[in-house]
Amino acid sequence: MKKLISYSISPNGEKFEIPDTKKTDDEIARIKEICDRQRKSGKEIVVVQGLGFVGAVTAAVIADCKVGEIIPYFVIGVNLPSKRSFWKIPLINNGKSPFNVEDPELQEIFSRTVNEKNNFIATWTSEAYSEADIILVDINLDAIKPDIGKAETGYVDISNFKKAIHDIGKRIQPHSLLLIESTVPPGTTEYIVRPIIEQCFIDRGIEITEYSLLLAHSYERVMPGPDYVKSIKAFWRTYSGCNKIAANKTQKFLSDIIDTKKYPLWELPRPLASELAKVMENSYRAMNIAFIHEWTLFAEDININLFEVIDSIRVRKGTHDNMMYPGFGVGGYCLTKDTILAQWASKQLFDRDERLKFSIEAINVNDLMPLHTFDLLLKGMKNTLSGKKIAILGASYRNDVDDTRSSPTIALYDYIQEAGGTSEIHDPYATSMDKRPDVKISSDLFQVITGASAVVFVIKHKQYIDLPLSVLIDRIDKDACIIDAFNVLSDKKIQDLKKRQFIVLGVGKGHIIDN
Amino acid sequence: MKKLISYSISPNGEKFEIPDTKKTDDEIARIKEICDRQRKSGKEIVVVQGLGFVGAVTAAVIADCKVGEIIPYFVIGVNLPSKRSFWKIPLINNGKSPFNVEDPELQEIFSRTVNEKNNFIATWTSEAYSEADIILVDINLDAIKPDIGKAETGYVDISNFKKAIHDIGKRIQPHSLLLIESTVPPGTTEYIVRPIIEQCFIDRGIEITEYSLLLAHSYERVMPGPDYVKSIKAFWRTYSGCNKIAANKTQKFLSDIIDTKKYPLWELPRPLASELAKVMENSYRAMNIAFIHEWTLFAEDININLFEVIDSIRVRKGTHDNMMYPGFGVGGYCLTKDTILAQWASKQLFDRDERLKFSIEAINVNDLMPLHTFDLLLKGMKNTLSGKKIAILGASYRNDVDDTRSSPTIALYDYIQEAGGTSEIHDPYATSMDKRPDVKISSDLFQVITGASAVVFVIKHKQYIDLPLSVLIDRIDKDACIIDAFNVLSDKKIQDLKKRQFIVLGVGKGHIIDN
Repeated sequence: MKKLISYSISPNGEKFEIPDTKKTDDEIARIKEICDRQRKSGKEIVVVQGLGFVGAVTAAVIADCKVGEIIPYFVIGVNLPSKRSFWKIPLINNGKSPFNVEDPELQEIFSRTVNEKNNFIATWTSEAYSEADIILVDINLDAIKPDIGKAETGYVDISNFKKAIHDIGKRIQPHSLLLIESTVPPGTTEYIVRPIIEQCFIDRGIEITEYSLLLAHSYERVMPGPDYVKSIKAFWRTYSGCNKIAANKTQKFLSDIIDTKKYPLWELPRPLASELAKVMENSYRAMNIAFIHEWTLFAEDININLFEVIDSIRVRKGTHDNMMYPGFGVGGYCLTKDTILAQWASKQLFDRDERLKFSIEAINVNDLMPLHTFDLLLKGMKNTLSGKKIAILGASYRNDVDDTRSSPTIALYDYIQEAGGTSEIHDPYATSMDKRPDVKISSDLFQVITGASAVVFVIKHKQYIDLPLSVLIDRIDKDACIIDAFNVLSDKKIQDLKKRQFIVLGVGKGHIIDN
Repeated sequence: MKKLISYSISPNGEKFEIPDTKKTDDEIARIKEICDRQRKSGKEIVVVQGLGFVGAVTAAVIADCKVGEIIPYFVIGVNLPSKRSFWKIPLINNGKSPFNVEDPELQEIFSRTVNEKNNFIATWTSEAYSEADIILVDINLDAIKPDIGKAETGYVDISNFKKAIHDIGKRIQPHSLLLIESTVPPGTTEYIVRPIIEQCFIDRGIEITEYSLLLAHSYERVMPGPDYVKSIKAFWRTYSGCNKIAANKTQKFLSDIIDTKKYPLWELPRPLASELAKVMENSYRAMNIAFIHEWTLFAEDININLFEVIDSIRVRKGTHDNMMYPGFGVGGYCLTKDTILAQWASKQLFDRDERLKFSIEAINVNDLMPLHTFDLLLKGMKNTLSGKKIAILGASYRNDVDDTRSSPTIALYDYIQEAGGTSEIHDPYATSMDKRPDVKISSDLFQVITGASAVVFVIKHKQYIDLPLSVLIDRIDKDACIIDAFNVLSDKKIQDLKKRQFIVLGVGKGHIIDN
């Protein structure tokens, strides 16, 4: 019988064989050997679980860390050997960043820590946990929204997270620090993680003392973008331990990694408070976006350019200078779901039902934002999309990164398809749409815009800001409609397009519609 | 037949006779004579209509203005001779501030401009408008909320405002500037004020040109409090004219009054945009408060002190440092109603119905905030308020001012009375409750707390922060309950009270409840 081989394919099309049992046995031996060696050289072993947008770069930053002349930590990044993400492991082990983001530090830190310093490896085997002095949990905890626009029906699928914690609990050394960095429903560290580890310790015959169950929570504020790497090292950190020993150990570890001179650490009394801070912080941002969206609709009604109104308000430093601008939609893993984590905790961990309705409504407003851009498109195209080619410029939810997690582009894509149009998506960074393998992303801008009846700018990638109008004009239909959903085009460009009889509409740009 | 004399009584109990026709005729002659004289000395006449919290102090600031060696403006403040507010006129004419606010500049600027500089008078006669080179409209535009918690049923009573504009239109000189400073439904200057003035000009046979209808809008950001006077002179100003001439004239006037070196003026293209900016700015603040309130309830559920969580988040300058803190409620004329002005405009001036629901919901969340403090009180008193004396400390909605407009104190007062308790309200500044003459406010703190079964701190007046615990303990019931609804008491004070077996509960202070 022929052996079945599975492959994992990277966004750039590199194909990697998913390891079998034999290879895993070899890998375990290799990890043990490396760790023994590294420990002898005086380093502590840090295992980072989850090599997503947070975990991968966090691992590299820890591996890069130097305290005086000492390199305190050797780092192992662990990721499941799934088809969807195994490719990250060989990529990292080749000294390459698994993500494509406009941060010059990003590629450098991977090649430096892996190839030059030999201080960072990635692996798929859970056995790495048994080698760890410190384990960081950086896996995503998914919130499921069964109906878009009804976030109140959202819930958390905690099963994978629990399984991962159980995997750790079976292997973690009694005195190692388990530091949860994932954004979790408030209460997770104390009421979900702790009982699992305790049970594992009981099963393993490990005595539970204040030295043998070192649990803590500290949330990251990683921002994929030009300061991706810096956003880990040089930014504010809040942490909290389940007991004083765990808190102290976390404080020491974070002090090594983070520029605490500029950004002193902030300790909260319980992981519950730190977990609350994270989801509240992100819910605040989501709320501010939702607020702007409904004022955007009002401003368009009354034909006012909301951008200059907001600029006039933002002069009020300290109270109004964080006001957002009109835009296309909200993506990523934080702002689209964190309030749901809190509401789920409220129901499941604290037995309360009626909380956070207002913040949940903000999620709904935001999730439905792309519908407004679609409405502008319908208006610009006089309600006939059928058979028309529509170019969507931008697949990721943030400028100059390849991150397509929960990208609002997908909503617009679906609306257009449902209306009988043909959407083509371009992106200079992203090559695939998270969780939507059916959706193609092209890196060929000219091909995507050629013959388009409409072009929709949905994100402010550098390439779109710099795009000369002539390139657009030469390729799109003579009576094409251009929708600027993210303030990509200057007022000057918009006026030039309108002079040439193109229809131009922009989110929040009321004044342009009538001129 | 005996002549009927009406009186207007100041908050301090001073009684003033409301003038009759004869007195008004004398007053008109007096105004004319004064204006003639002031004009001869080279000054322009500025008439400020409405001597409320904004108008009175604005008038004083303009009267105080000096450009180089020149005093450019003589100021007349106009207020209706109503029972409710006529008293402000004789008070100002005696060089006294009509308001009691902890700003040392406040009393000074009234006595200086009225008594020393002789550059500011107050009057009740509309004939003053005919003398004006510049008219500032600073009257309040009321939004009516028929049901608390249902701001969506709110509406604007525009009739008094229209009447006031009509009064001006009948008298204003053709080339004078009419500057609307009131917060108004977006569109008011262009779609309500302008047609009224135009009709008045037609009736008066005045030709309408771009020089004869000089309308503008510029909103203030006055903040009653320690920087009350400064908040007019030294703060950001946005303005917009209906045409370029009006805009230029406004720009020149504001440049004389405001410290534009530090706070450059911001011009928007239309009054509609400036009016939108104002209500949006205040709606943003209201939204941020509503956000915090629902997270306060959640934090109390899970027994977390939200104050320290918020402090840990606020380190994020520029994005999260304007996060509010838990509190008792929202008062004043801005945050409680401005979104209603916008929604009213959307319906009445722009024929749209479904806008700004989310921001309107924020008003509802805020209007119901005092109910939570009442719930804490019920909890602390084991649901028995009947026959008990409850001391409410604070009548105004802001610390260290006497402003009771839309104060949330009144909601708590009513809840307690309805539950059979007896509320007594103390305030060191306010002496009467706006629009609720039935509610008494005492300035005798000792009397209010003596024998109280509960004390509720609802605002952070200096006197309450400084109150020694012994003063409280000696006077309240031995098993009294203390509710801190506005973070007035330090953690130390709360612990001390608890040690003495008092029940202490605090809004947003989850950790204290269980300890």
